[in-house]
Amino acid sequence: MSQLVEGVPVAKAVIKLGKALLDPSSVAIVGASDDVSKTTARPLRFMIEQGFEGRIYPINPRRETVLGLPSFPSLAALPEVPEFVFILTGTATVIDTVRQCGELGVAVVCVLSGGFSEEGYEGAERQNELSKVARQYGVRVVGPNSIGVVNPRNGFFATANAAFAEPQVPIGTTFVASQSGSVIGALMTRAKAVGIGFAGLVSTGAEADLTLGEICEATLDDPGISSYALFIESLENAGSLVRFAALAAERGKGVSVLKLGRSDAAAQLSVSHTGALAGADDEADAFFAACGFVRVDTFEALIESTPLHGVLPMLPPGHKPRVGVITSTGGGAAVLVDQLEMRGVTVVKPSELLFAQFAENGIDVGHNLIVDLTLAGTRHDKVLAALGAMQRSGEFDFIVFVIGSSARLNPDLAVRAIAESVEGNTPVGAWALPDALESLKLLHSAGVPAFRTPEGCADALAGLLARSGVQTEALAQFRSVDAGLTEVLDEVASAAVLGAVGVRVPRSWVLLRGDENVIPADAYPVVVKALSADLPHKSDAGAVILNVQSQGDLDAACDRIFTNVAAYDADVTVDRFLVQEMVTDGILELLVGYRVSETVGPLVVVAAGGVNVELYRDSAVRLAPVTSQVAAEMVSEVRAIVLAQGYRNGPIGDVDSLVETVVALSQLAVQAPDVIEAEVNPLVIRPQGNGVFALDALVRRRGLSPNKQLQSHNPESELRM
Amino acid sequence: MSQLVEGVPVAKAVIKLGKALLDPSSVAIVGASDDVSKTTARPLRFMIEQGFEGRIYPINPRRETVLGLPSFPSLAALPEVPEFVFILTGTATVIDTVRQCGELGVAVVCVLSGGFSEEGYEGAERQNELSKVARQYGVRVVGPNSIGVVNPRNGFFATANAAFAEPQVPIGTTFVASQSGSVIGALMTRAKAVGIGFAGLVSTGAEADLTLGEICEATLDDPGISSYALFIESLENAGSLVRFAALAAERGKGVSVLKLGRSDAAAQLSVSHTGALAGADDEADAFFAACGFVRVDTFEALIESTPLHGVLPMLPPGHKPRVGVITSTGGGAAVLVDQLEMRGVTVVKPSELLFAQFAENGIDVGHNLIVDLTLAGTRHDKVLAALGAMQRSGEFDFIVFVIGSSARLNPDLAVRAIAESVEGNTPVGAWALPDALESLKLLHSAGVPAFRTPEGCADALAGLLARSGVQTEALAQFRSVDAGLTEVLDEVASAAVLGAVGVRVPRSWVLLRGDENVIPADAYPVVVKALSADLPHKSDAGAVILNVQSQGDLDAACDRIFTNVAAYDADVTVDRFLVQEMVTDGILELLVGYRVSETVGPLVVVAAGGVNVELYRDSAVRLAPVTSQVAAEMVSEVRAIVLAQGYRNGPIGDVDSLVETVVALSQLAVQAPDVIEAEVNPLVIRPQGNGVFALDALVRRRGLSPNKQLQSHNPESELRM
Repeated sequence: MSQLVEGVPVAKAVIKLGKALLDPSSVAIVGASDDVSKTTARPLRFMIEQGFEGRIYPINPRRETVLGLPSFPSLAALPEVPEFVFILTGTATVIDTVRQCGELGVAVVCVLSGGFSEEGYEGAERQNELSKVARQYGVRVVGPNSIGVVNPRNGFFATANAAFAEPQVPIGTTFVASQSGSVIGALMTRAKAVGIGFAGLVSTGAEADLTLGEICEATLDDPGISSYALFIESLENAGSLVRFAALAAERGKGVSVLKLGRSDAAAQLSVSHTGALAGADDEADAFFAACGFVRVDTFEALIESTPLHGVLPMLPPGHKPRVGVITSTGGGAAVLVDQLEMRGVTVVKPSELLFAQFAENGIDVGHNLIVDLTLAGTRHDKVLAALGAMQRSGEFDFIVFVIGSSARLNPDLAVRAIAESVEGNTPVGAWALPDALESLKLLHSAGVPAFRTPEGCADALAGLLARSGVQTEALAQFRSVDAGLTEVLDEVASAAVLGAVGVRVPRSWVLLRGDENVIPADAYPVVVKALSADLPHKSDAGAVILNVQSQGDLDAACDRIFTNVAAYDADVTVDRFLVQEMVTDGILELLVGYRVSETVGPLVVVAAGGVNVELYRDSAVRLAPVTSQVAAEMVSEVRAIVLAQGYRNGPIGDVDSLVETVVALSQLAVQAPDVIEAEVNPLVIRPQGNGVFALDALVRRRGLSPNKQLQSHNPESELRM
Repeated sequence: MSQLVEGVPVAKAVIKLGKALLDPSSVAIVGASDDVSKTTARPLRFMIEQGFEGRIYPINPRRETVLGLPSFPSLAALPEVPEFVFILTGTATVIDTVRQCGELGVAVVCVLSGGFSEEGYEGAERQNELSKVARQYGVRVVGPNSIGVVNPRNGFFATANAAFAEPQVPIGTTFVASQSGSVIGALMTRAKAVGIGFAGLVSTGAEADLTLGEICEATLDDPGISSYALFIESLENAGSLVRFAALAAERGKGVSVLKLGRSDAAAQLSVSHTGALAGADDEADAFFAACGFVRVDTFEALIESTPLHGVLPMLPPGHKPRVGVITSTGGGAAVLVDQLEMRGVTVVKPSELLFAQFAENGIDVGHNLIVDLTLAGTRHDKVLAALGAMQRSGEFDFIVFVIGSSARLNPDLAVRAIAESVEGNTPVGAWALPDALESLKLLHSAGVPAFRTPEGCADALAGLLARSGVQTEALAQFRSVDAGLTEVLDEVASAAVLGAVGVRVPRSWVLLRGDENVIPADAYPVVVKALSADLPHKSDAGAVILNVQSQGDLDAACDRIFTNVAAYDADVTVDRFLVQEMVTDGILELLVGYRVSETVGPLVVVAAGGVNVELYRDSAVRLAPVTSQVAAEMVSEVRAIVLAQGYRNGPIGDVDSLVETVVALSQLAVQAPDVIEAEVNPLVIRPQGNGVFALDALVRRRGLSPNKQLQSHNPESELRM
């Protein structure tokens, strides 16, 4: 396990927090209403109806009783210090009430009220004050703007979410944490419809104190929780997720995430909605991959993917997942195969040996990609035999049964047989072509992951099959950054920084203007460039001359660059030149980059060179540092790499060196924490065995050297990543 | 309307077919079983249970009665000629029975049995025989391999699909035609769950006689049918869809399509599954766009998109759709916005004027993209007022209400108000964040399109908003092609063909080897190329020399090409050279192409040049010919075009000329029907006003000129498109 968590188990205080959050012995509800039509009556009503066994104290100075329970005028008037306080009153009194909770020694306070970070400057100030009070007294706060906390296992329904008026909220082993309050109710109802329950649901609100990650961490040693479903609008508090991710992985508890912001519009929305800044979507992808989380795209896959965590083991690195599809309905199965393949999941055909076994067992199927039992697919014995043969074959990592009409009409046929196959040594899941909620419930209760839609099934499976372990080294390097003042280094200084971690540049010389400039004769042809941190766009300035062949041409080139730059920008005087050997055997130019993101920490990027990264978003991003294996994965994700892999009988490039260079660049996260950004563009890939070379390099680091231009955030000199 | 359908209304015979198909006065079931556990008992059982009012004749020589009805030994023994015959017997007797139906004068026969085109050579032969018999007698056949025909309006449940054992199959106005039998039952059950019914469902099977398009056409004048939902595995019989598309558009009846084959694997599956070849996916996209069909990607959007056809009018060309989102649950609405924007649907923010109107009406909302009513979103009066203001504003083409918990708990609140807004002058739809089937039913019964998932909602809306009218000219040119023997023309002959439709090439001269070769002095610099139809890869052969500056250089270039080619391929002798003025002001090179597809007819393509079309599939495809408007749409779909639109302060290219050239090339469909393929690669885009030029051109046409090499299907000379 990583140094991040080694010797740092979930602390006692955190476990205590988890208990106070989900299983408090006493709860006070400040502002509880006796009028059942009011939102503020809900938490008390729900807890009474759901039979919460802890002690409940309504606080309402204007009443003797609230919903039949004796009412108290204030927290101070209670016969004991409540473990959990839910504040339902208006914005104005929240901070005072939290302070009072702190003075009394309450463990957890949940704040329903809005009027904080989502409401401009004043609201943000108010939220800062709330955070300060919480820290000052050590009282832990959920919210503000939290719709509450629900534990279906013990009737602790401390929530104002109307959905929990539901009589039978099913219990499961997945814990839900959501930055949107309405989503917890919606997930519960949608999960209930297919027979999935939850072990707890928390609306994390604006996270003035407790973050989503901290809340999840507090539940990690709850034996009733085996997986997590997270609804995330912003990664502003990513740090706490890092810790949770490492600890969850250690415990083998899987995590599914739905995060807003796949589109730019939704990213902006999450600003207006919770007052938090959403990170860029590729940063989020990289972050979740490093955390070992499964990011899903469809709303229902957030629910339906959770049972997969328990049954589908992580595949060994480099293993291409093999999914088998068996069905009673060929047309339906084809719909699923289409959805799976679109998401990169390979459906594999049974071997001839397996077809022979089918025949021996009297199972008559065509030798096709899909095992189509047709009518036999509604016979319990045939399904059992066919599934058993597939499970024993070892030819599949996962098998999906696509059930036809019998799922709706006669679950005792195929559905029961699938449920009975749950003990086989290959996990099985199911999608029902018709509307068949009762069958989905039956399957879920038997422990078989089942899906309502082919899109949800494919989304969940693609995510689970692609997951790999946490990138522990990267998580250990996680840090949020306030870049402050930074400086951009010139190309030679940049190359020195990158050279220290192992990025190679061609043989180079720095020449001074006016000096006698002699380089070895065998160095020609060379490239001559102005050397200056003040010229971010050298080519535009006429400050790069290629293919210089001789000493005479070299002198002329230096003169020309001097003149060009003077004409381009009178403020820049070129007094140094960088001369490099030409790379004449380049096969492909890419971009590799490194950046410390404000939200998710150090990142490394591989991308198509030139304009293609912008036009086609042809890039791969991961948290840094990366292992060779992750770097190789990244390289294979960049589509342009095929051009260096013998495309149209072309040459084969040194992809191994490319992978090494990505690993090297990512080591900046460990070895050069002052570097904020680094970009090699282009990185040229030469033929196999000849390596890769950085042809241009730019590094931005924190702090200022003497005599360097101050560049705190000058868009002109921005590195593109 | 197009020449295709002008003066060709749905023929009487076709209307009669529609009646016989969905509303026969009498039906015979050949092979009807009395054993209700058997599949072959289903059609009769369903029709009895559903109260079909036509006369029903079971044919079963071994019984006196079947399920209580008198049984007949043969079709000949019936007291009348049945209008519809459903054959449930084994493969072996099918053809004889169909012949007998033909002799008797039966209008429609539906064949359940398999054993035809899906079963190798013998099966295909059997299917040919079946087609022949049908044509010979003029009896129309649905199937083989059809699970049957269902009309919920009159209890005509001539189907073996178990799903129709359902007691209450809802009636609606959408007609379903599916190439998969199991899908019709699944669609019915899923539609029923959300309160959508159908006007009829047909499983088209292997289409030995009646194609999916013909079946749909036969129902076009059925007043109970207002829209269509098609499940398509193969476009083999696209011709009949063309006719149906034109007639459906004329009647304003909308069509939604789900087609397998988004992934290659599913395309292969549809081969094994129905014995039909699936066309390439981009061909299918182009085809459906020309038909004016809405192609959806999610299974449920095939159902849930159909009500949109009636309420969402087609937007004027070039109008960017504006969707408004209003909600009681910000988090849920953000999920939908993400899904919409990912599919290119723009959610627009209300104007300040509209916000002022909200305020006047006492509706308190933040000035955000989403109109978030929060708690007021569960108040009937507030929802009505807010929706009304949005509808009257004219700022939106469609408004989606995202309903929170109240959709599940209290449909009388927001849901009723939405249903009451159906008469407003902007159409309204709804997505319910929680599981809320009753609300969806209520909305659908009120005529409000409603959606179960955000993905389905976004998929359906994106499709409907993007649809444009049928490309009537392209549909009129539809033809399937058997290319037979073809020849590839040399560059000059190719340019002549393309020049005739209006594609421009640079000023050019053909020189003969050995002659005195003088071209005007102002032509330099020029490009020199070998002119030969036998050299498809000129550059590889060293047969292209750029930037030739003078007469002397020109002679030398011709000599060098002659020598290079002789060394490259001893079988090719270069005796002619093509000399063209160099284009020195090119901004961007693209590929434009034309091809007559075997399944969907003439196509025109615009694509990124070089390797990017392969790496990034950066291309746009439409049926040919195209109008300027469609060509402009295509150009804007190619991402590389930004490089000719002032990218990074670069020059602006002559995109108008590019559009004209695409239109011109597409005219090959009309003006040169013998051309099977044509490719301009590269087409260079010059600065605004300077036009675009074909720098290389290749045409393949049907038939052989004398002395031309025979190239029926030589992959070496294949044009890439």
